[in-house]
Amino acid sequence: MSAPQQNRRIVLASRPVGEPTAENFRLETVPVPSPAEGQVLLQALYLSLDPYMRGRMSDAKSYAAPVELNAVMVGATVCRVVESRHADYAEGELVLAYTGWQDYALADERGMRKLGQLAHPSAALGVLGMPGLTGYMGLLDIGEPKAGETVVVAAASGAVGSVVGQVAKIKGCRVVGIAGGPEKCRYVVEELGFDACIDHRAPDLAEQLAAACPNGIDVYFENVGGAVFDAVLPLLNTKARVPLCGLISQYNATGLPVGEDRMPHLMVQLLKRRIRMQGFIVFDDYGHRYGEFFDTMNAWLAEGKIKFREDIVEGLENAPQAFIGLLKGKNFGKLVIQLNK
Amino acid sequence: MSAPQQNRRIVLASRPVGEPTAENFRLETVPVPSPAEGQVLLQALYLSLDPYMRGRMSDAKSYAAPVELNAVMVGATVCRVVESRHADYAEGELVLAYTGWQDYALADERGMRKLGQLAHPSAALGVLGMPGLTGYMGLLDIGEPKAGETVVVAAASGAVGSVVGQVAKIKGCRVVGIAGGPEKCRYVVEELGFDACIDHRAPDLAEQLAAACPNGIDVYFENVGGAVFDAVLPLLNTKARVPLCGLISQYNATGLPVGEDRMPHLMVQLLKRRIRMQGFIVFDDYGHRYGEFFDTMNAWLAEGKIKFREDIVEGLENAPQAFIGLLKGKNFGKLVIQLNK
Repeated sequence: MSAPQQNRRIVLASRPVGEPTAENFRLETVPVPSPAEGQVLLQALYLSLDPYMRGRMSDAKSYAAPVELNAVMVGATVCRVVESRHADYAEGELVLAYTGWQDYALADERGMRKLGQLAHPSAALGVLGMPGLTGYMGLLDIGEPKAGETVVVAAASGAVGSVVGQVAKIKGCRVVGIAGGPEKCRYVVEELGFDACIDHRAPDLAEQLAAACPNGIDVYFENVGGAVFDAVLPLLNTKARVPLCGLISQYNATGLPVGEDRMPHLMVQLLKRRIRMQGFIVFDDYGHRYGEFFDTMNAWLAEGKIKFREDIVEGLENAPQAFIGLLKGKNFGKLVIQLNK
Repeated sequence: MSAPQQNRRIVLASRPVGEPTAENFRLETVPVPSPAEGQVLLQALYLSLDPYMRGRMSDAKSYAAPVELNAVMVGATVCRVVESRHADYAEGELVLAYTGWQDYALADERGMRKLGQLAHPSAALGVLGMPGLTGYMGLLDIGEPKAGETVVVAAASGAVGSVVGQVAKIKGCRVVGIAGGPEKCRYVVEELGFDACIDHRAPDLAEQLAAACPNGIDVYFENVGGAVFDAVLPLLNTKARVPLCGLISQYNATGLPVGEDRMPHLMVQLLKRRIRMQGFIVFDDYGHRYGEFFDTMNAWLAEGKIKFREDIVEGLENAPQAFIGLLKGKNFGKLVIQLNK
């Protein structure tokens, strides 16, 4: 394979205030670096786009360091080794890496994991990757669902929500999804096997959710916040569990809504109904259990017990618009950028 | 012992709006009932007054049924058997019961627990009773304090807070209390052995708390809410635990404060810092562990490792004012009404 000459990459040009815009990103072309001894040169085939990246664009204190201005946007990738100076990695091998929004990058063994023979390599960014691990661990370790209980998850057709709901079905729960629009809701019920799915755009969201949860809610896997949580809170049962995975409705917020301060109300509800609410960050809390998760999920996939859907967008140059759309729920399935073939 | 003729009791005359007032209570005198076969007649010696009683005065949906209008106010008591038609209970024996705000009541074996030879019988309402169990279980089972961590508790001189802090010290933690006024703060540090105690009336509460917690807060045992929680929230460490035991600052609230809605802010903080917040109701969650708690606490008391303080008010007729004062923090130590000697 002849050595590539140009590396295209997208850097953080400025920090967003509220919703990110195209101007916050800049496409650059730089020379492709050469691997030193012990390194490989990776060509990214697939780039994962995920809501957590909005947090990295801000310099507010958070659980992970922000992306520096003019630095490459971070992200997980499925890559091919195109040049190897590492004895354990052969040219042509596929690896999972964290090379970000760019075509080429250098890595050593600390920065990549061999993928072996995967039927569907891009699944390593979704159902078999960080989003899958997030849904699996948050549901099982914090949510602790028991057969017969009711589990609710929003963004139900997405990378995390679809895993939460399908795993909850495997565990014998009644599962109610919330998704954006009739097409996604139909998919969630008919393809993924949820018991019901409610369109969060419905003006009577709260009433529809109450009707779909006649025995209340025992586990609410929180990944959106906002109006969905407002509809969920009155339905939470005594001893309910709320794994806090994400709050996508808040990521673009520039201030708090004005009106009543419901913080005391939330705490009173948690107290009276003895609810556990617990935030988690998947790689900090559960990274060490990735192997256990991977084996279980891979078996479920092979048995057809878990289905997944990808929304693949071609071309690095389209990553910013795709990411902006992700924060608005425009994708349908796990959003992946195909960078190279 | 000649049979008593008159039973004095305090009933709920009306439901409070905001702070309870004397008019919400009514003192009545009724005939003393006679025990049927299998029952005993109890004379209450000590009545426990506790913040949870404010909730029982309201008919808002909560974890326990409200006290009916014109019914006797509920409450735990230490009683003497004064007439027995039950083979297992002798006249003169002391029992822990739940006979409420009155001098006499009937009970059978389901409604009482023998106290045996307690050095200090009223302690069965405090450090060895429900408040002690609350502090012990909430701290150890939900708070999971580890040696070297920082534990913060408000109402630190009170029945629950004083147990939380002293048990945390036994576990090797740095313990910071919050209490109302210099006298209580001095007691908390000098008598109970906390590392520091801050007056919640101080205008610079947040700054003082931050200075007293140079390594942040790992466990915040929540029993007050309001301004104290506002000062605590920014200091909570990654993976902090917040057992939610009570929110006394909210019990008299008639509406939510106006301003920014900080409910999303709280959820974002729980997420980013991976905090666990969990409500509990002591008898529902931990009633089955009372025996284990009692043995441990009784041993600590005998060894002098745990100290306690009571605020004893004489006379049933003074219970309403004492209770109204309790909600304002006027008591200093476990509030107990001495009904009879």
